Amino acid sequence: MGDSPNLRTPTRDGVLEAARKMAEILPPTPLIPFEIDGQKVWAKAECLQPIGAFKIRGGWHRLSDLSDAEKTKGVVAVSSGNHAQGVAWAAKRLGIPATIVMPQDAPPIKLDRTRELGAEVVTYDRMTENREAIAQGLAQEKGAVYVHAFGDPWVIEGQGSAGIEILAQLEEQGAPAPTRILACCGGGGLTGGLALACPEAEVVPVEPEGWDDICRSIETGEIQSVGENPPPTACDALQTFATSPLNFAILKERCPYGLRVTEAEVREAQRFAFANLRLVLEPGGAVALAAALTGKAKLDGTTVIMLSGGNVDPRQFCQTVWQA
Amino acid sequence: MGDSPNLRTPTRDGVLEAARKMAEILPPTPLIPFEIDGQKVWAKAECLQPIGAFKIRGGWHRLSDLSDAEKTKGVVAVSSGNHAQGVAWAAKRLGIPATIVMPQDAPPIKLDRTRELGAEVVTYDRMTENREAIAQGLAQEKGAVYVHAFGDPWVIEGQGSAGIEILAQLEEQGAPAPTRILACCGGGGLTGGLALACPEAEVVPVEPEGWDDICRSIETGEIQSVGENPPPTACDALQTFATSPLNFAILKERCPYGLRVTEAEVREAQRFAFANLRLVLEPGGAVALAAALTGKAKLDGTTVIMLSGGNVDPRQFCQTVWQA
Repeated sequence: MGDSPNLRTPTRDGVLEAARKMAEILPPTPLIPFEIDGQKVWAKAECLQPIGAFKIRGGWHRLSDLSDAEKTKGVVAVSSGNHAQGVAWAAKRLGIPATIVMPQDAPPIKLDRTRELGAEVVTYDRMTENREAIAQGLAQEKGAVYVHAFGDPWVIEGQGSAGIEILAQLEEQGAPAPTRILACCGGGGLTGGLALACPEAEVVPVEPEGWDDICRSIETGEIQSVGENPPPTACDALQTFATSPLNFAILKERCPYGLRVTEAEVREAQRFAFANLRLVLEPGGAVALAAALTGKAKLDGTTVIMLSGGNVDPRQFCQTVWQA
Repeated sequence: MGDSPNLRTPTRDGVLEAARKMAEILPPTPLIPFEIDGQKVWAKAECLQPIGAFKIRGGWHRLSDLSDAEKTKGVVAVSSGNHAQGVAWAAKRLGIPATIVMPQDAPPIKLDRTRELGAEVVTYDRMTENREAIAQGLAQEKGAVYVHAFGDPWVIEGQGSAGIEILAQLEEQGAPAPTRILACCGGGGLTGGLALACPEAEVVPVEPEGWDDICRSIETGEIQSVGENPPPTACDALQTFATSPLNFAILKERCPYGLRVTEAEVREAQRFAFANLRLVLEPGGAVALAAALTGKAKLDGTTVIMLSGGNVDPRQFCQTVWQA
């Protein structure tokens, strides 16, 4: 990331601009009140975006800001599936060619949907190939803009637009501004964007156990990577090895701590969302809810829980909710 | 129904009052744009209500209008589960005793949730017992108010409050007023309420095949019952034998036709909602979507599709979406 020419610092003004642009094309996702053990909380249902995830925000803010010359040459991205669809959705709407580098073992539903949106999908082997190198190579070859999944100022600002909606929606509902926001966290794009959007709120990144590089980065004050043999996780969307300096500059100032949840806790959160909120969540989309349901997260004051994404294989989902 | 003392005529002013009261306690459910074969349509996601169904509206409008003396004596209702929860939710919030008469074979999830909301549940055998007689007897014994599931002016007005939200939400999104609204239809409470709420829209009731008493009532101009041996249906929420004169007075003026969908079409709509909208729908909650997806409903202009409810047994749901 360090050598990208586009590394301007993301700003709250940029987040406000992203929110204005999102409002032109899509209604806000609902902020749904519900209770956990008698405590009122709010779910920001980003799984109801057209692509089933908040990633549509960063994709739209980035691609809609490209110059005409850049639009002609297209974009390249790396993603296990949600950023892929966010970029592909924006590219389709803007008539921009998009090439997305995705792991061979990404959920088939995510590979299919990215292709259905008109993007060219290039697959790689997670264990033996370097995805960044493949993507950078493709971008160079095509003269295309590389849209990083989290370490990009537009992407961070775009994801943060969800926070601007939260502020407006709480006010409409006569509720106080958010005390804290619990956010699913892979590379820190959403977490960083929310921190910019809501300067008065505590923003809490939530990661799957063993993929807790951001928790450990916050704890040590320096960017950490996941360990050498990270455990298997159903949270394919959160399998990021390390955050970028752009994101960490925000996180280290604004996030006093992160939280970790287990695979079993994630499944229980998916079941809760199915039964009590009537929402379909993929494992990675349920981690913030898991942190709330288990008591790991504080819930006093006004707590907002990010729910995203909802792109899950039906068989995998059913194996989970069957136990409900 | 004919001998109830409360049969005032429901009005659009009553619907507006119901909408005002709903806005005091709950945010509007989202109106979600999506596409069917390239045609933009809107889903009104009533499955995201706290009880998973629009029935919370009629329950709240009715119970919150009771006198203090009536509140003390409580309410009685008959329902396979969604009206049950709507009444129980309102009763709990208002501190009113509620007795709900439910079929023994109602989905266990609906029986459990009604009890969890604090209502007393009395079960009956669909094949051998008269639910109306049981409920009327209980109401008389307790001096309680009988809250009919659809043939009640407050209930009709309450359900119609969804239509007032739709009008406001389309305007916010810069879209024209609704050309038509496709509504799941059991006894005609929602359909009647929407017709009052949206006088310029075509309101189209959708029923499961074989449970098409409202379609046939509209076609013949007189209230018809379902046949003697109606086929089995997964749409437990729509197993109503005949509408009431109160509802039919609106429907015969405002609904030029109704639509019928098959069980297979309902399952396909549940799968579509799971995969494309990330929403959990019970079979009865998916009939309007089924009418849209199959091409049975016209979709030109501005079409709004009611999605409700979302109270479904996980095993039944998985047997359906597994085939997605």
